[in-house]
Amino acid sequence: MTISSTQLFVGIDGGGSKCKAIVVNQDNDILGAGISGPANPLHGFNQATHSIIDSTQLALKSACLDHISLSELTVGAGLAGVNLPSLFEQMTNWGHPFKHFFLAHDLFIANLGAHHCHHGAVIITGTGSCGFSSTDEGELLVGGHGFPQGDKASGAWFGLQACEQVLLSLDDLIPSSLMNKALLAKLSCDSATDIVATIAGENATFYAQLATIVFDAAEQGDQIAISIIKDGVDYLAALAKKLVTNASYEVKLSILGGLSLRLQPWLLAALSPTLQRQLVTPLSAPEFGAVLFAQGKLHG
Amino acid sequence: MTISSTQLFVGIDGGGSKCKAIVVNQDNDILGAGISGPANPLHGFNQATHSIIDSTQLALKSACLDHISLSELTVGAGLAGVNLPSLFEQMTNWGHPFKHFFLAHDLFIANLGAHHCHHGAVIITGTGSCGFSSTDEGELLVGGHGFPQGDKASGAWFGLQACEQVLLSLDDLIPSSLMNKALLAKLSCDSATDIVATIAGENATFYAQLATIVFDAAEQGDQIAISIIKDGVDYLAALAKKLVTNASYEVKLSILGGLSLRLQPWLLAALSPTLQRQLVTPLSAPEFGAVLFAQGKLHG
Repeated sequence: MTISSTQLFVGIDGGGSKCKAIVVNQDNDILGAGISGPANPLHGFNQATHSIIDSTQLALKSACLDHISLSELTVGAGLAGVNLPSLFEQMTNWGHPFKHFFLAHDLFIANLGAHHCHHGAVIITGTGSCGFSSTDEGELLVGGHGFPQGDKASGAWFGLQACEQVLLSLDDLIPSSLMNKALLAKLSCDSATDIVATIAGENATFYAQLATIVFDAAEQGDQIAISIIKDGVDYLAALAKKLVTNASYEVKLSILGGLSLRLQPWLLAALSPTLQRQLVTPLSAPEFGAVLFAQGKLHG
Repeated sequence: MTISSTQLFVGIDGGGSKCKAIVVNQDNDILGAGISGPANPLHGFNQATHSIIDSTQLALKSACLDHISLSELTVGAGLAGVNLPSLFEQMTNWGHPFKHFFLAHDLFIANLGAHHCHHGAVIITGTGSCGFSSTDEGELLVGGHGFPQGDKASGAWFGLQACEQVLLSLDDLIPSSLMNKALLAKLSCDSATDIVATIAGENATFYAQLATIVFDAAEQGDQIAISIIKDGVDYLAALAKKLVTNASYEVKLSILGGLSLRLQPWLLAALSPTLQRQLVTPLSAPEFGAVLFAQGKLHG
């Protein structure tokens, strides 16, 4: 069967660490997928646009559709960072190589993917963290203020907390933690001085890679790690409450992103019974939400 | 009177925000002073060496000693960051323009300046924070791990805490704070989104300029600001205790740096009666300690 390119849609989910793309046909079957580098334009416009093109080409290749030109594709993209008006404008003005390029922020397409409709709420905890809801009261975007000043309970935030606490512990100013040995090993370091030299000037993506150290230690009962997770989860519970309380009906809420599986048991314990009931497994991934978004834009 | 250049010493105190230099004669009279830009080599070797030369030339000029060549000066320099061995080595290998250039870390010369002897302890809270003590048990350097992972209770740390709490407050996830209006005004911003766009990617020096917002609000009774200061001061109290407890005698302790005056009343309340008694006003500034250091090196 020959696939006409007019039937092809690409969905992009671009975050601070990576960019995911899928190619789907008119029946919404996923034909291929690709992953490339960071695509949050806050950390570089050129990097973001490069990652979008790269992931799309990888998705075409995995679908054996290398012969399709980018100029034949209708692309929906949800990107972290474009909630900042200046970045939304910059990305909208991009001289993109596609037939159509529809842009939304990552939370909008994540919500659409999770609930297959515009009503619902999502919290994403990957490299960054952010909450979004769309209800009869309108849209609400909470958090997502970036690293290190915001994005509490994100991978980068957990990684930074781990570094802070380990440095305090190695200085003997707080008790010892299981994270001390784990962080030294992960960074191939021998001392606090060594850690500082290794992490100096590093970005959110780097810190996000250290988040698992906190969860590993907490799951073994480490009190310092547990305190970090409780602090993060209390924030997510407040975020969840804020996202859904204004609606006149029970809004479905999903937790997405690289940390969601490890956070889920801790978060459940921090949510009220009502919020626990509202928590649902997402129907599809954000990149599929980006396809639904592009289809909606194209078909009016 | 003609001053012979062989009698001239320069003392340098180089930190993350600025570099201070003084010129003194053989009687240790301060003849002139100069201030230039950042001199922590962690944030750039070229910037650090440029600031050292710049501040020295400004100090010579203010002493009407423009005719003196740099190659005739004996310089003692205390620099933040050179507790990292790689940076100490890089600065030691600098092809400097002086007759002599003696290098130590900023805490070593601050301690020497504060107590006019090698025995004593200092805590510096300026752009960064760090503790140092020199006792019969040896030297102890605690903290000073940089921004954002360390340097708790420093100007940069207070500024970052202010941003974090204001963003949470503007998101309506914590109560309102006096800091909200103050930060928006300071940054000429209208919203959380606006704040994020302004502070994205900023460094420790930028955040340190926001520290006064926390103290202003706390002194007016703002509970969120008071919590931040208490968290910082508890750290400094633990640091102070750690610095002096190993010695077999009562070690004198001084608090130095741009935030020391505003921190002093909060810190006193957090210290034990013994530590309160050990707290003394510094005899001289760190840059004078750098002169004493150079003289000691030169004479033996």
